[in-house]
Amino acid sequence: MDSDYGTPRELSDLQKHRSLYRPQLPPCLQGTTVRVEFGDATTAADAAGAHTISRFFPHTYGQPLAHFLRETTKVPDAQIITEHPAIRVGIVFCGRQSPGGHNVIWGLYDALKAHNPKSVLLGFLGGSEGLFAQKTLEISDEILSTYKNQGGYDLLGRTKDQIRTTEQVNAALTTCNNLKLNGLVIIGGVTSNTDAAQLAETFAEAKCPTKVVGVPVTLNGDLKNQFVETNVGFDTIAKVNSQLISNVCTDALSAEKYYYFIRLMGRKASHVALECTLHSHPNMVILAEEVAASKLTLFDLTKQLCDAVQVRAEQDKYHGVILLPEGLIESIPEVYALLNEIHGLLRHGVSADKISSQLSPWASALFEFLPPFIKKQLLLFPESDDSAQLSQIETEKLLAHLVEAEMNKRLKEGTYKGKKFNAICHFFGYQARGSLPSKFDCDYAYVLGHICYHILAAGLNGYMATVTNLKNPVDKWKCGAAPITAMMTVKRWGHNPRASSFGKPAIHPAAVDLKGKAYELLQQNAFNFLMQDLYRNPGPLQFDGPGADAKPVTLCVEDQDYMGRIKLLRDYLEKVRTIVKPGCSQEVLKAALSAMSSLTDILSVLSSAPTSVGHFGNNHS
Amino acid sequence: MDSDYGTPRELSDLQKHRSLYRPQLPPCLQGTTVRVEFGDATTAADAAGAHTISRFFPHTYGQPLAHFLRETTKVPDAQIITEHPAIRVGIVFCGRQSPGGHNVIWGLYDALKAHNPKSVLLGFLGGSEGLFAQKTLEISDEILSTYKNQGGYDLLGRTKDQIRTTEQVNAALTTCNNLKLNGLVIIGGVTSNTDAAQLAETFAEAKCPTKVVGVPVTLNGDLKNQFVETNVGFDTIAKVNSQLISNVCTDALSAEKYYYFIRLMGRKASHVALECTLHSHPNMVILAEEVAASKLTLFDLTKQLCDAVQVRAEQDKYHGVILLPEGLIESIPEVYALLNEIHGLLRHGVSADKISSQLSPWASALFEFLPPFIKKQLLLFPESDDSAQLSQIETEKLLAHLVEAEMNKRLKEGTYKGKKFNAICHFFGYQARGSLPSKFDCDYAYVLGHICYHILAAGLNGYMATVTNLKNPVDKWKCGAAPITAMMTVKRWGHNPRASSFGKPAIHPAAVDLKGKAYELLQQNAFNFLMQDLYRNPGPLQFDGPGADAKPVTLCVEDQDYMGRIKLLRDYLEKVRTIVKPGCSQEVLKAALSAMSSLTDILSVLSSAPTSVGHFGNNHS
Repeated sequence: MDSDYGTPRELSDLQKHRSLYRPQLPPCLQGTTVRVEFGDATTAADAAGAHTISRFFPHTYGQPLAHFLRETTKVPDAQIITEHPAIRVGIVFCGRQSPGGHNVIWGLYDALKAHNPKSVLLGFLGGSEGLFAQKTLEISDEILSTYKNQGGYDLLGRTKDQIRTTEQVNAALTTCNNLKLNGLVIIGGVTSNTDAAQLAETFAEAKCPTKVVGVPVTLNGDLKNQFVETNVGFDTIAKVNSQLISNVCTDALSAEKYYYFIRLMGRKASHVALECTLHSHPNMVILAEEVAASKLTLFDLTKQLCDAVQVRAEQDKYHGVILLPEGLIESIPEVYALLNEIHGLLRHGVSADKISSQLSPWASALFEFLPPFIKKQLLLFPESDDSAQLSQIETEKLLAHLVEAEMNKRLKEGTYKGKKFNAICHFFGYQARGSLPSKFDCDYAYVLGHICYHILAAGLNGYMATVTNLKNPVDKWKCGAAPITAMMTVKRWGHNPRASSFGKPAIHPAAVDLKGKAYELLQQNAFNFLMQDLYRNPGPLQFDGPGADAKPVTLCVEDQDYMGRIKLLRDYLEKVRTIVKPGCSQEVLKAALSAMSSLTDILSVLSSAPTSVGHFGNNHS
Repeated sequence: MDSDYGTPRELSDLQKHRSLYRPQLPPCLQGTTVRVEFGDATTAADAAGAHTISRFFPHTYGQPLAHFLRETTKVPDAQIITEHPAIRVGIVFCGRQSPGGHNVIWGLYDALKAHNPKSVLLGFLGGSEGLFAQKTLEISDEILSTYKNQGGYDLLGRTKDQIRTTEQVNAALTTCNNLKLNGLVIIGGVTSNTDAAQLAETFAEAKCPTKVVGVPVTLNGDLKNQFVETNVGFDTIAKVNSQLISNVCTDALSAEKYYYFIRLMGRKASHVALECTLHSHPNMVILAEEVAASKLTLFDLTKQLCDAVQVRAEQDKYHGVILLPEGLIESIPEVYALLNEIHGLLRHGVSADKISSQLSPWASALFEFLPPFIKKQLLLFPESDDSAQLSQIETEKLLAHLVEAEMNKRLKEGTYKGKKFNAICHFFGYQARGSLPSKFDCDYAYVLGHICYHILAAGLNGYMATVTNLKNPVDKWKCGAAPITAMMTVKRWGHNPRASSFGKPAIHPAAVDLKGKAYELLQQNAFNFLMQDLYRNPGPLQFDGPGADAKPVTLCVEDQDYMGRIKLLRDYLEKVRTIVKPGCSQEVLKAALSAMSSLTDILSVLSSAPTSVGHFGNNHS
């Protein structure tokens, strides 16, 4: 099979058209000089974890932010790199495929060749397994030609295996040494970028000259933090799913007799479900984060859904569309506890058919209450990140089943007098993952690929490529790099901890921020969405004309450009220093001292408070 | 809920853009004069059934074909209609929604108003139920504005109920009389057009002045015959599904560890599955027609799939994409027989939980062999057309389950030495039905709407609107009308016949023609598709640029324009008459007599042979 990788292939007319599309570069990446300005040393968002992180990452923690600037920018202390020796770089797809991944390779390739035509880009075949086994394909213009702006990871393939065990890390080290790589670029999500940080630290410790760079590519959209606004692939996934959800809404409104329960791929967090809701305006969405925050039980959820069905029936509406994220199942408290017991027993080698007899009495009672198909799915061995096999658990069918039973009960008791409740269930996931990437994802990925080169040219190790200000046009995008360790947090508690991950710093999936603007937008509209069928149909993904340049709604409503604002703060501090120079008046000095003292007091108080948002509570991941 | 119908709604940018698109009219429909030329009286394709059909339809059987001509065409015996009194027309959506349905209404509305601004178009609300209850909405430009070129049936809604019982037919008659309708247009598939023919006959018998017209709108693509080349909605459904199938193919090729089993909506026939295969080139497709023709059992199918998995594993390929139509389950002989027993018992009032104990020994053995989820689905009450609830039976999961069990067995026995077989199952149906219609479907539906007016202006009853030569550009399309009775066949045998349908003529769903060119194209490529992963990705449905003007592959490869060729034959006969006039030489007369005698002999032999293709065998529907 390896021999098939990178083979040119026949493209459809639309694919050909897309392969000729050329993403624009922001001004700072144009030209052949690299100008990099370093910001302050970074800390961790979770101040309490900073010490632990610095202990685990002595070589790579606390490195400064890097901003890449345009050639003409006048910044006194920017480092200007004009010499570009030929370098050798390896690139690897890690984890689940996400539309746009190919463009990272293309962007890096173009940047490498533009700065030195003798530089070499090696793609690892078959993901991390190819990295361990030193299986490579040298990337060329010809190979790229039928993969530019195309979906999937099929140019190189992927495995979902992590780069984590000592054997795996050592194998990667050997490969980088043997192939004399100056850089290793890892394309992936939360887990793969955590692994990238670990590799960077190990390589630094081992004095291996290979610098490791991470790129945020995941359809889940959950690699989000101060430095990273969104991920490559998320926009496409949301658009393809929204098309299908809108089609189902139209279908519901035409036939007026079904409730559609649609589960969306996206792992623990509900970013995809929220984004699709803001595109398509279905009647309801149940976010995992809401359920976890309000500790809603299966019974609560069923009751709320039934009440919604009933109030719609009173308006003679017997159809509806309800979205739910695949992570929902783990956020329901009693199901989570049950899963925990099951996973514990599975890890202790208890076989699936013996588990039900070894559960605690209450867990056993819940388990027996569930319909057979769900039982079977809950008994699946957990994933390598300790979560259940979310894509395999048909939560949509469970809820539809429970709602149907309850509605039939109400009908019998006479508390519901409408027509029979009918549900149709869907899981939208695999059919979106391989899509042609949207224009935004093509552009974003290509630019990130370029930035990887700039990071390597600046000699940085353990960084992630970042673009901020993304909601503005490409010529306003700001390019930079942030140490991956600055995105980490430490989970001090966990059920079923495994020795290797307990208390170890990692990038954790960002939850939907229940205090954020996107969620606020949902809340404002939730009742009207429920009652009024305000279905919106963005239509199929377009590459020209109306809608072609749309960006994620959740990206556009959020405040952005954290890195730009960090720079702005620096400028303010510099200005204070300039104004309050020796020789300034007593009054000026007094005012400055008073203001600064007050400001530092406020900031000390704020930064010592526990971080309350942005990650799942410990009891739910 | 009724009050919501036809309300203007907010459109997305792309929807707005589409709502401004204006389909082109073929030359014969331009201008305000209607010229109609009548062809020979029609017969039925199934000569043996002609007598039965003429008995059931004394008023509407044997009517001539009608061809609508451009204003300037010089045809001596064309009827020219220049007076266009104001008329009142009703229109109703029947059966399952299909993309493009709204454009039939728009086309008819435009034609009505162009010929007489005082004409009125009434839409029936909520499908056939609205027809019985006289619930109408007067169509206006304003109401249409947000529904032009948009998917779904939500302008008027629909019900799946048929217009068949005496009460239903009488209710329809009363409505048409009360509303003083000159015409009633029925938008639907095989069943609804059969009902339209019945209504036309009943109305003629009752001397009701309302003329009934049918329009071929069904995503199944199974209303196909000499007069009808394809159906409104089929192109869109195939394109939306092909997008998703191609995404899954890309996914398969990226991860290289899953076999995807994808079931496609489309009722008994496999047109959608065949069309999608020719778009996306998945590894395999199992057509219901092939299985029925070769009498493949579940065991045969499992074995063939496993052999395919095994031969791919030998080439180190552990992924693949396999399509199957929802009608497959009924085409497997032993499952069909089992379903027959179950449906018989259900119709006799046996409750689902008691059925397994009342099955014949062999049916019981098969039933017990099947996994629980399939058992439950097979026990569902049959649809009104006597078929199983195809959309609810997860044949894809059944096959994946059987293949997995067999591969595990082979692994254990050592006859298979590859990696473990992993399957992921999908059903693509509801998520495509509500799509924005493709350009082709928009054009086709709009033109059909226009033709409905021409049929009514010519005073025809019991006709279906037809467009032929569809694979050519719109300005070459030929517009006409054919008596619906000419599309009927008679099934003389049937299991579980119900008194009302036994032996009664009907339009039956056309099966995929296993001698046709589209199937030949599949056969030529099947082995390469299986082994070489020649996946093709047409991408998401586009409205501009490459791919936007694509038409169904199955439409484009078939010979077409039956109605045009019927006209050509008439011209030949006319020419013979002109050449062989009294006074011609003995030799010419002798040659003509000899040739004509031979020709009539050949044709008599051919037409008395049983029709072998084009419909499901009696034992399989």
